[in-house]
Amino acid sequence: MAKSVTFKPYDLTVEVPEGENLLRAALEAGVHINASCGGEGVCGKCRILLEAGELDSPRSPLLSDDEWNLGYRQACQSQVLSDVVIRIPPESLLDRRTLTRRRGGIGLRASPIDIASLRAQGLYNPAFQKKFIKVPPATLADNVCDLARLESSLARQHALDNLTLDFLLVRKLAAVMRQENFQVTATLDFAQRRSRKPRLVNVEPGDRTGQHFALAVDIGTTTVWVQLLDLANGEIVGTAADYNGQLSYGDDVITRILYSQKDGGLKTLQTAVVSTINKVMKSLLKKHRLPVEEISHMTVAANTTMTHLLYAIDPKNIRLAPYTPTACHVPPVRARHLGLELPDHVFIYCVSSVSSYVGGDIVSGVLASGIYKEPKLTLYIDIGTNGEIVIGNQQWLACAACSAGPAFEGGGIRFGMRATAGAVEEVSINPETLEPMLITIDMVKPKGICGSGLINLLASLMEADVVAPNGKFRDDLDTPRIRLGDSGREYVLAWAAETEIGQDIVLSEADIDNLMRAKGAMFAGYLTLLESVGLRLPDLEQVILAGAFGNFINIENAIAIGLLPDLPRENIQFVGNGSLMGATLLAFSRDLLEEERRVADMMTNFELSETPGYMNQYVAALFLPHTQAEYFPTVSERFRSLKG
Amino acid sequence: MAKSVTFKPYDLTVEVPEGENLLRAALEAGVHINASCGGEGVCGKCRILLEAGELDSPRSPLLSDDEWNLGYRQACQSQVLSDVVIRIPPESLLDRRTLTRRRGGIGLRASPIDIASLRAQGLYNPAFQKKFIKVPPATLADNVCDLARLESSLARQHALDNLTLDFLLVRKLAAVMRQENFQVTATLDFAQRRSRKPRLVNVEPGDRTGQHFALAVDIGTTTVWVQLLDLANGEIVGTAADYNGQLSYGDDVITRILYSQKDGGLKTLQTAVVSTINKVMKSLLKKHRLPVEEISHMTVAANTTMTHLLYAIDPKNIRLAPYTPTACHVPPVRARHLGLELPDHVFIYCVSSVSSYVGGDIVSGVLASGIYKEPKLTLYIDIGTNGEIVIGNQQWLACAACSAGPAFEGGGIRFGMRATAGAVEEVSINPETLEPMLITIDMVKPKGICGSGLINLLASLMEADVVAPNGKFRDDLDTPRIRLGDSGREYVLAWAAETEIGQDIVLSEADIDNLMRAKGAMFAGYLTLLESVGLRLPDLEQVILAGAFGNFINIENAIAIGLLPDLPRENIQFVGNGSLMGATLLAFSRDLLEEERRVADMMTNFELSETPGYMNQYVAALFLPHTQAEYFPTVSERFRSLKG
Repeated sequence: MAKSVTFKPYDLTVEVPEGENLLRAALEAGVHINASCGGEGVCGKCRILLEAGELDSPRSPLLSDDEWNLGYRQACQSQVLSDVVIRIPPESLLDRRTLTRRRGGIGLRASPIDIASLRAQGLYNPAFQKKFIKVPPATLADNVCDLARLESSLARQHALDNLTLDFLLVRKLAAVMRQENFQVTATLDFAQRRSRKPRLVNVEPGDRTGQHFALAVDIGTTTVWVQLLDLANGEIVGTAADYNGQLSYGDDVITRILYSQKDGGLKTLQTAVVSTINKVMKSLLKKHRLPVEEISHMTVAANTTMTHLLYAIDPKNIRLAPYTPTACHVPPVRARHLGLELPDHVFIYCVSSVSSYVGGDIVSGVLASGIYKEPKLTLYIDIGTNGEIVIGNQQWLACAACSAGPAFEGGGIRFGMRATAGAVEEVSINPETLEPMLITIDMVKPKGICGSGLINLLASLMEADVVAPNGKFRDDLDTPRIRLGDSGREYVLAWAAETEIGQDIVLSEADIDNLMRAKGAMFAGYLTLLESVGLRLPDLEQVILAGAFGNFINIENAIAIGLLPDLPRENIQFVGNGSLMGATLLAFSRDLLEEERRVADMMTNFELSETPGYMNQYVAALFLPHTQAEYFPTVSERFRSLKG
Repeated sequence: MAKSVTFKPYDLTVEVPEGENLLRAALEAGVHINASCGGEGVCGKCRILLEAGELDSPRSPLLSDDEWNLGYRQACQSQVLSDVVIRIPPESLLDRRTLTRRRGGIGLRASPIDIASLRAQGLYNPAFQKKFIKVPPATLADNVCDLARLESSLARQHALDNLTLDFLLVRKLAAVMRQENFQVTATLDFAQRRSRKPRLVNVEPGDRTGQHFALAVDIGTTTVWVQLLDLANGEIVGTAADYNGQLSYGDDVITRILYSQKDGGLKTLQTAVVSTINKVMKSLLKKHRLPVEEISHMTVAANTTMTHLLYAIDPKNIRLAPYTPTACHVPPVRARHLGLELPDHVFIYCVSSVSSYVGGDIVSGVLASGIYKEPKLTLYIDIGTNGEIVIGNQQWLACAACSAGPAFEGGGIRFGMRATAGAVEEVSINPETLEPMLITIDMVKPKGICGSGLINLLASLMEADVVAPNGKFRDDLDTPRIRLGDSGREYVLAWAAETEIGQDIVLSEADIDNLMRAKGAMFAGYLTLLESVGLRLPDLEQVILAGAFGNFINIENAIAIGLLPDLPRENIQFVGNGSLMGATLLAFSRDLLEEERRVADMMTNFELSETPGYMNQYVAALFLPHTQAEYFPTVSERFRSLKG
């Protein structure tokens, strides 16, 4: 049940779920509270005064008995149990103004796949279907072969004629048909029905039509996601993930490609990812107590390199100019052939790629987001090591990979790290004291800063007016938080004593430079793709953010640093793991499965480095938020009002 | 060059090839010469007098110097070197009459496959074709994937659009395309083009269109034949055969099926036949110095049990009532998947079967003989362990397996044997002395009698009037050649001393009984199938004899014993190994490949044991040639004239 939290002296109220952490509630309300230890409760800076209502808050040695009795609590250790009124103490107080309420983005999560809406659109029609058949037993007067008996019964009882079939089912056919007196369940593959006959892929004894499952897999360079799907009832049964086993052989696709060139490297990488899929899939089946035999097919979405590695196709030329993948569309392959521990009859359907760096994960996301069939001009963004972008609508789609670098995954940033426990993800900075309020993942002492944390930190520094639009720190501030380091000036986000790592965690001008390059590469990509089709930034009607990272981005801050275009916020949406979502949709919808290659073919790939104007756009974007201030009207407005 | 051989005192002349054996020339002329040792030259009974011309004939201790100088020679040891005049000496002479010239059947061999005629009919169009393509190399401005480049070049240069493809070629595609600067040869599979897109199955560097081969295989229960085919030039390159390695596990299909039910038995049998095919295929490729990589596909024809065993499909129900095979049509299967040592891209196309005992070997023969598209009412016969028969024309086809038993393979006959060295194959009997003239395979001392020898022997015994129409020997003849044995009376074909086995080789009344049952089962089959469609024996317009055995049958004698219907001889043809020929035609002709399943489906199977009237027909046929003498007008006529 929702509880209200009112922050005094601002009289700002937010609704939060019961049990919400008070520091998060403050962030949600846009209220600053000093906090240095990420939420672990050891710095004691985040104390507040409980004026009304109830908090679940432990006694702490950092608060005296007097303070406790007066109502002081540590915000990071407190959970909201009722409607409460909280007073922010002077040391955390922002006299000059309240922070702009800017947390609209957070909490905006992608909606799960809506099967009901698929059904409503007539798109719920899995390519794989089970049919129950009563075959008349053979007699001397009618002793045509088992297969022909099955086929003619399918024709008579289900009007299914002219089938092709998977050879391997023939081997078990005689035994299966006799197990329950010639009553069998046939699994049929109706994919590509316009160009292909339905394919008979499996037979089981008796009526098994109620037990029918598929797997959707998203193979990321870092993480492998598997979703277990109930094809009989149109439900997502469960989702599980694990790190891609290939991580042992390199963090990014280029390192993996280099590794694949070693003796046996390709095989090693293939085995690694297949083992990961096997492991995740088995844990999922075990959890839901399903036998693997009930799986009928598997859909996969992955970037181009991951696709090549899954199929053991040499990815060498992905890395070498002119960057030609071997194949962007791979026909269905028997899962077992690749080492996947699935029944013989399971084939893998992999989403088509567009080019070496715009892969099936992006096509899958485009399918999931539906932009290929909408009239609205949409920008689809997936930010990872490379930022892939797609612009277009139902009539055309242009795409490109921006060499954004791994900054948003923490790469190339001195205290950058992946979004795991101890990574600073939420930051706000008191513009007067320059004291930070920070929350880490899992609320433990900080170890570093993850991508979303970097965006929030940089935006907060801009907001606090300590970083200039050129990315340099002001040198006229009298604070120990800003000092000269090895790479120019730097801001100290956490002091050594407050961290897990025993060093000061800082953000330097060199780090800011890297972040500007990364966001500049993306923004220059948007403009270049738009220009290439004769359009301009204001023509954009919608932005869709995909990827696990996209899911945690604070939109206001991402716009503030110039990473996302400055659109009305309601036109910016998260799609979550679009790649996995697309794979799931393909398993649920034959129509989409048939459309995926067309959508990939529809996407015109631009090699940005070869596209005139890109370099100029890039250089122009190396500014916060941009050299062309008119691209970011609300950012200018916001900062102006802050400086008020 | 042909030489003439004139036999005195009959003044009969035949043309024979230079080097022909004189005993064979006598058989060809229908001239009897006593001969007991099968042609090995040790009995000395076959001496003749050379009156003119030249024979290549060794000196023999069985001829005195005087005899040699007078011109006596051993016929079985003599080869014809020039036109010769030969006088038959008194001991071999038939005073009463010359034997009816009855060798018209012998030497009538199936014509080899006529590619020119296939071409003339527009049927020469192999399903697998190679295309040379110059793919434009990739550039940064045009860097679509290798596969798409190949596909669009195929579309532009060969108007081939909308292909499917074999996944495995993707793995080597990038390397192959770069080996000769993006010039490649693509192999395409155009089979089933009405219902399926063309399939891209292989790529090779450079122009390999001139090197394109296929294999046609006939898997017999006893023998495996492999034919190497040049698809680029439409030629049969070579043919080779070996015994089916499954022979170690049983002689006939029933024994094999029983063996397959043992633990690991199915796998053992599959491995055995695959090893045989691998061995024969490799020897053929080695002989013609061809790399196995140039093979594009393999067509196979085999009986239903052999097909099941090749694919490791349990054949159990073939043997159990109601005799349902698991599958009569098996979709193309990757050869390597079955253990065949062929390139990854080779798939096996197997001719469809009709029922448990009318297999793909028969369908293949029907295809090769073309009866399914002729207006003439034709009887197609393949005699082996089972005799399979097909009756019909372009409008309908009826078929059945007759449980003829293995008599014509020598089974169930005391001195019966397979057609190998030492088997008596040619026999004639002097009606006065009852002395035999016999020739064995390879002309060595006799070991036994093969199927064609049994037919010839039985017909000769009928001709010599020592066997009555009921299959019993006359008991009024004063000759040591006919005597009472363990199984009724018997005729001594060779005395122990003249044989390889050191025993008298005889044909007993029990043996004759078995032969009558075998031929009776066949003949009853012809009549029953005809009756089942409301036709009668005189409606038959043509007989086609298939099978290696059929190839060696003496037609006159086969008719004389009632095995073949008494049609005008010019309407009886040999098709040779129809099964292999059909497989070869399928490799050469997409049209036929697409027709084979339709032809199999067109063939209505009759289980004779379930067909009314069959048993009566069978009983009526247990007579020589038949209880209904009017079925065999020329036989009655011939015997009447002999007695005349």
